[in-house]
Amino acid sequence: MAICYQTPLKPTTFTRRHNHHNNHHLSPQKSNSFTTHLSLSSSSSQTHHPDLHLSSKPEPEPVLATVRSFAPATVANLGPCFDFLGCAVSGFGDHVSLSVDPRTPAGQLSISSISGDPSSKLSLNPLHNCAGIAALAAMKSLNIRSLGLSLSLHKGLPLGSGLGSSAASAAAAAVAVNALFGSPLSDLDLVFAGLESESKVSGYHADNIAPAVMGGFVLVQSYQPLTLVKLDFPAEKDLIFVLVTPEFEAPTKKMRAALPKEITMSHHVWNSSQAAALVAAVLKGDVIRLGKAMSSDTVVEPRRAPLIPGMEAVKKAAIEAGAFGCTISGAGPTAVAVVDKEEVGRVVGERMVAAFRDEGGLGATAVVQRLDRVGARVVESVAL
Amino acid sequence: MAICYQTPLKPTTFTRRHNHHNNHHLSPQKSNSFTTHLSLSSSSSQTHHPDLHLSSKPEPEPVLATVRSFAPATVANLGPCFDFLGCAVSGFGDHVSLSVDPRTPAGQLSISSISGDPSSKLSLNPLHNCAGIAALAAMKSLNIRSLGLSLSLHKGLPLGSGLGSSAASAAAAAVAVNALFGSPLSDLDLVFAGLESESKVSGYHADNIAPAVMGGFVLVQSYQPLTLVKLDFPAEKDLIFVLVTPEFEAPTKKMRAALPKEITMSHHVWNSSQAAALVAAVLKGDVIRLGKAMSSDTVVEPRRAPLIPGMEAVKKAAIEAGAFGCTISGAGPTAVAVVDKEEVGRVVGERMVAAFRDEGGLGATAVVQRLDRVGARVVESVAL
Repeated sequence: MAICYQTPLKPTTFTRRHNHHNNHHLSPQKSNSFTTHLSLSSSSSQTHHPDLHLSSKPEPEPVLATVRSFAPATVANLGPCFDFLGCAVSGFGDHVSLSVDPRTPAGQLSISSISGDPSSKLSLNPLHNCAGIAALAAMKSLNIRSLGLSLSLHKGLPLGSGLGSSAASAAAAAVAVNALFGSPLSDLDLVFAGLESESKVSGYHADNIAPAVMGGFVLVQSYQPLTLVKLDFPAEKDLIFVLVTPEFEAPTKKMRAALPKEITMSHHVWNSSQAAALVAAVLKGDVIRLGKAMSSDTVVEPRRAPLIPGMEAVKKAAIEAGAFGCTISGAGPTAVAVVDKEEVGRVVGERMVAAFRDEGGLGATAVVQRLDRVGARVVESVAL
Repeated sequence: MAICYQTPLKPTTFTRRHNHHNNHHLSPQKSNSFTTHLSLSSSSSQTHHPDLHLSSKPEPEPVLATVRSFAPATVANLGPCFDFLGCAVSGFGDHVSLSVDPRTPAGQLSISSISGDPSSKLSLNPLHNCAGIAALAAMKSLNIRSLGLSLSLHKGLPLGSGLGSSAASAAAAAVAVNALFGSPLSDLDLVFAGLESESKVSGYHADNIAPAVMGGFVLVQSYQPLTLVKLDFPAEKDLIFVLVTPEFEAPTKKMRAALPKEITMSHHVWNSSQAAALVAAVLKGDVIRLGKAMSSDTVVEPRRAPLIPGMEAVKKAAIEAGAFGCTISGAGPTAVAVVDKEEVGRVVGERMVAAFRDEGGLGATAVVQRLDRVGARVVESVAL
């Protein structure tokens, strides 16, 4: 048995063209549809990863018998960066074990077990399971036709909490498939596989799946072609997240419905400048400015926070206790605050839990975690 | 006579609280009013530059008899960063000469001459002249009561061209006043003085005056308090601007009236992500991504470009000739493109001039210049 870790040293900008139904370049409209037919090589200089036509693509051989992978929790939106920025958080996430399985028909995937899901909501049908959809997409991308695979999923993240639970399952599954065949796929390919899953669960957005795969902060610059920008938070600096999850169901669809359809120009300018300042703070390693920018959203947070009992009081409590900023993680209901010291984080977490209890009437749990700079990785493998 | 240059090594983040009529913290609304009464010291941790009450503030002595200063042209907006980002461009700008003048009443300023303004639109009344207003604001900030000053202005920038002409005059004037008294004011104080001028000429916006004073790229994160973030483009990399100014008057007010009052959420998300990507590209020194993001505005440029004859064709011509991106500089009519090689810049400039001529019926001139990393500085001084 070999234990190996994926290297955190990766290229920092990625693009991939996708053969969308509506191929609007520089269009702000995201398509709701998604097709798994990958494009032929393109003449555009943006296409760094042209795909070979599937029928002519060689099928790789497996290099491992079994692989176990992990993908971390992710925080999307971060206030003003709604729908285009996310980051990975260490310490908790989902695990996938994957094996070559002679009992599964060639080119197909079976899910043998799901653990750690007290809600029992997750399906064993791979076509209706985040890990299954992403694993199948990775298999398709690799052109696996001669072997069947079997997957087991261990959920470490609660569903519908705003911590990128579906993305963690998808990222872990895609990385596991890739590793089993010697890791020929790029990070961008893996994000692409995960996006197929995300599009069926919570909409066509990459702000959870990209950091779940790549670690750190990832900016989604465009979808056509898929262009991701890794933002490296300086290695010598500490960035600590306080994540407080209340016992409250805030479904993504309901939170999406709360979004405004139109916003004023002044709000647009304000939020854009805060998003830009947040990116600058990440790259400079300025936790104070990062927190301040994260706290400054006037477009989405004001519409969503009232839907989560106690959220406004939780944010106030976090900042009063020393957090540099606080907002809703993803579509909620988890609240995320940033600090630069673990001991401050613990106090901030306690106050946030108390505010959820006192002002929202909700039980809540707090965790204090660092930025995960690596993303989805193999944690264990068994040779053939 | 001593010749000295302002150091380019400056702190990278600046904040200053201003005693606005409407003091909305984290509000996206900019006030149109501006008062010169500076605030008393504040308890907020954001106030890094509390002002002493003017009546109790000591009056500095002059350290020079005459000073000559320069401030560069600036490009604001840069596509998706409308109203909150600008950068300085080397090679052309405005000069100010300033002297202690016994013929000017104490605490006042006179303008002795204005050269380089073929339109002769500029007033010698310091209350109606950008350089005059900024110089008086700097004198007020320094609490100059016992001496009169005389200023002469040489315009190197055309008016109303979208190259930050008013900001260059204001920045040069504020820096000259400061230098005459030993430079006790910070860059933030100088931007503040320049803002008083900008608010009377083209609205309360700092995206020209901040880079005119500080050089490089400057992000205006907020106005209350005034918070500026310097974005350092890597010193070892080249960033070259092609600036093509047509013979066409595009007044700021008309261009502002073309702005949409409301925008859709999808355009907001798209433009915010491009602004964020542009900031990342600046800090990483990625000229290709910078150009691409600069070219990607779907909110302002589509409304303004049709008001400048030939602009759409000019953008197309620039990119076809090898520019990484092209957009309107400030409120126009100048078009700005970015490249990383001077020789490419010259070809791009020729094609853009040709497009203004062929598609817009306008004569135009092109200049190829580098990023100015220093900003407003003293270029010549005479000791007392």
